[in-house]
Amino acid sequence: MEQTNFAAPGFPSTPFLSVDAGTMDRNLTAMAKRAATAGVSLRPHVKTHKVPQIAQRQLELGAVGLTVATLGEAEVFADAGCTDLFLAYPLWVTPARAARIKSLAGRAALRIGVDSVEGARELGQAVAGSAVQVMVEVDSGHHRSGCRPDDAGAVAQAALDNGLAVAGVFTFPGHGYGPGKRGPAAEQEAAALSAAVASLAAVGVDADTVSGGSTPTAADADASVLNEIRPGVYVFNDSQQVELGTCGWEAVALTAVGTVVSSTGRNVIVDAGSKVLGADQPAWATGGGRILGMPDARITALSEHHATVAVPDSVPLPRRGDILQLVPNHVCAAVNLAEELVVVRDGAPAGTWAVAARGRNS
Amino acid sequence: MEQTNFAAPGFPSTPFLSVDAGTMDRNLTAMAKRAATAGVSLRPHVKTHKVPQIAQRQLELGAVGLTVATLGEAEVFADAGCTDLFLAYPLWVTPARAARIKSLAGRAALRIGVDSVEGARELGQAVAGSAVQVMVEVDSGHHRSGCRPDDAGAVAQAALDNGLAVAGVFTFPGHGYGPGKRGPAAEQEAAALSAAVASLAAVGVDADTVSGGSTPTAADADASVLNEIRPGVYVFNDSQQVELGTCGWEAVALTAVGTVVSSTGRNVIVDAGSKVLGADQPAWATGGGRILGMPDARITALSEHHATVAVPDSVPLPRRGDILQLVPNHVCAAVNLAEELVVVRDGAPAGTWAVAARGRNS
Repeated sequence: MEQTNFAAPGFPSTPFLSVDAGTMDRNLTAMAKRAATAGVSLRPHVKTHKVPQIAQRQLELGAVGLTVATLGEAEVFADAGCTDLFLAYPLWVTPARAARIKSLAGRAALRIGVDSVEGARELGQAVAGSAVQVMVEVDSGHHRSGCRPDDAGAVAQAALDNGLAVAGVFTFPGHGYGPGKRGPAAEQEAAALSAAVASLAAVGVDADTVSGGSTPTAADADASVLNEIRPGVYVFNDSQQVELGTCGWEAVALTAVGTVVSSTGRNVIVDAGSKVLGADQPAWATGGGRILGMPDARITALSEHHATVAVPDSVPLPRRGDILQLVPNHVCAAVNLAEELVVVRDGAPAGTWAVAARGRNS
Repeated sequence: MEQTNFAAPGFPSTPFLSVDAGTMDRNLTAMAKRAATAGVSLRPHVKTHKVPQIAQRQLELGAVGLTVATLGEAEVFADAGCTDLFLAYPLWVTPARAARIKSLAGRAALRIGVDSVEGARELGQAVAGSAVQVMVEVDSGHHRSGCRPDDAGAVAQAALDNGLAVAGVFTFPGHGYGPGKRGPAAEQEAAALSAAVASLAAVGVDADTVSGGSTPTAADADASVLNEIRPGVYVFNDSQQVELGTCGWEAVALTAVGTVVSSTGRNVIVDAGSKVLGADQPAWATGGGRILGMPDARITALSEHHATVAVPDSVPLPRRGDILQLVPNHVCAAVNLAEELVVVRDGAPAGTWAVAARGRNS
């Protein structure tokens, strides 16, 4: 991306999140092409960006619909005109939620994840008469939500018995987030989904949609088993993806723009802390994030409004007032802290996008 | 606190942040009494709660003013009527920020932190003619911002030379956040502040205000040196404070209310993940937070919308639909994710407080 003067008129005071529109568009186009080449549908997870304008671009580039994590996110994207939504979460359906689901199902094709016989029954009873379809979630090794693949048929049967159509099966191979893990995780994903498809077939249900694929595992997704992928992070990428080898620095589209406010020796303090970057830091990470254009620098500590950056001897020490671009470890967490994203095109400020679904956790 | 039925009418859908007003008021009263007994002023850090109604209560109980981390926070609390603010951060003062500082100094007594000769000179030149006062920040061992205590006099002199009055010196003993560290950190805090006071005296400046004191170190603050403390977290407390031994569970006033949505064996999945609790997890923490009333349970993994809770054999396994109260590791981070806090009084819903300064990072 072009060098940007973030002190120029048109940019807000630091710290803020900035998106390089050109880099983002290359990321969107590359994933759309990868899915098309592999012959799988792309249903991007919009929890990463929470921005209707970006979702619109994803749909223009061929996405079959969107994936969301919460009912609140689904409502924001339905309000923005999206007509095909998959809520990939085993909701507890209270009467209040049932009313919201029925309303949503009246204006968008709506799929909802279930991972237990009880969950399928409860959902069916709560939204009886609506057009909600079920996707059965299976655990492929991440050990979070999801039933055992062999139990997927029983869950599907419970959905059918309670008046819900079954669209297919899905999993999230989140255990692919680790050095050297994405290949094995993609294999386990395919094995779990195959077993789930067989389990559905055993009760006479054809799994039309077989869905998987995080950003790290998307490249290894087995198109002989999966016919849909749901990556989210690829739109922006982040330090985790670079450190995992999923992408290079040139594919990082979002940074936290911060100013150096203090320094001691080779350590400088930047005004973008954990309230801007988020505090995610897996054990294998090199620190609290990275610095764009300074690959050997390390964020050795993050407090709420301070990033402590250890600057290697090989580069000039930034001075008070210098602006740095920090790359969050986990971009989904950083975006969810911000009200807006500052858009940069060809090095110049180009308006903002509201993070419309920020904080919509319920 | 009384048992609360969070599924009752008047509560929103989970996940949400809830504050027990009675517990909070006991925390506020206890810290006010502790400061009064020690003979030190209390200037609470409002970055923890970001709520004007809570700041008002702190002032009613005798706080001399408020501490804030950013200019945006200062503006929110000035708008809410606070007339005495300390911005404890070494700002980089752009022309846009200088205009905001001058406006703020016209409606509130305003102190701003500086930690370098350059910073003092730049601030003085930028806000010439305003009534801003300087507090010199010194490093007492946390190694974040702050000059060496022996350099404090030179920083104060630079402030005076550039037309700014000097109110005193301050430090943040953040290295007290660790098991067994708060006593030694409080000692280093007192030593650093003593040296800073001497350094100011050497250039003929009397440090009226000598300010320190985080929540963990407040109890050990040396009132023979300090005359002001700035704790923040004590209003709500959190898992970190309990695990550090600063308080007991009965003093935890804020929880993330979540619903069990899935389970496998003795693991249950709750719908309050890192987008509700925050992802802070120091190396010494037992997990991603704790569960109120279930001290032996552990949050073994946190993803954005899932907390994985390992439930010990000694307690009944929560079922799908059961509501749990999760205690964040770091309450400041959790509050900064929420638009509002749901208030509970005597076990019943009692309205909401807007997190008015949420996301005001600049």
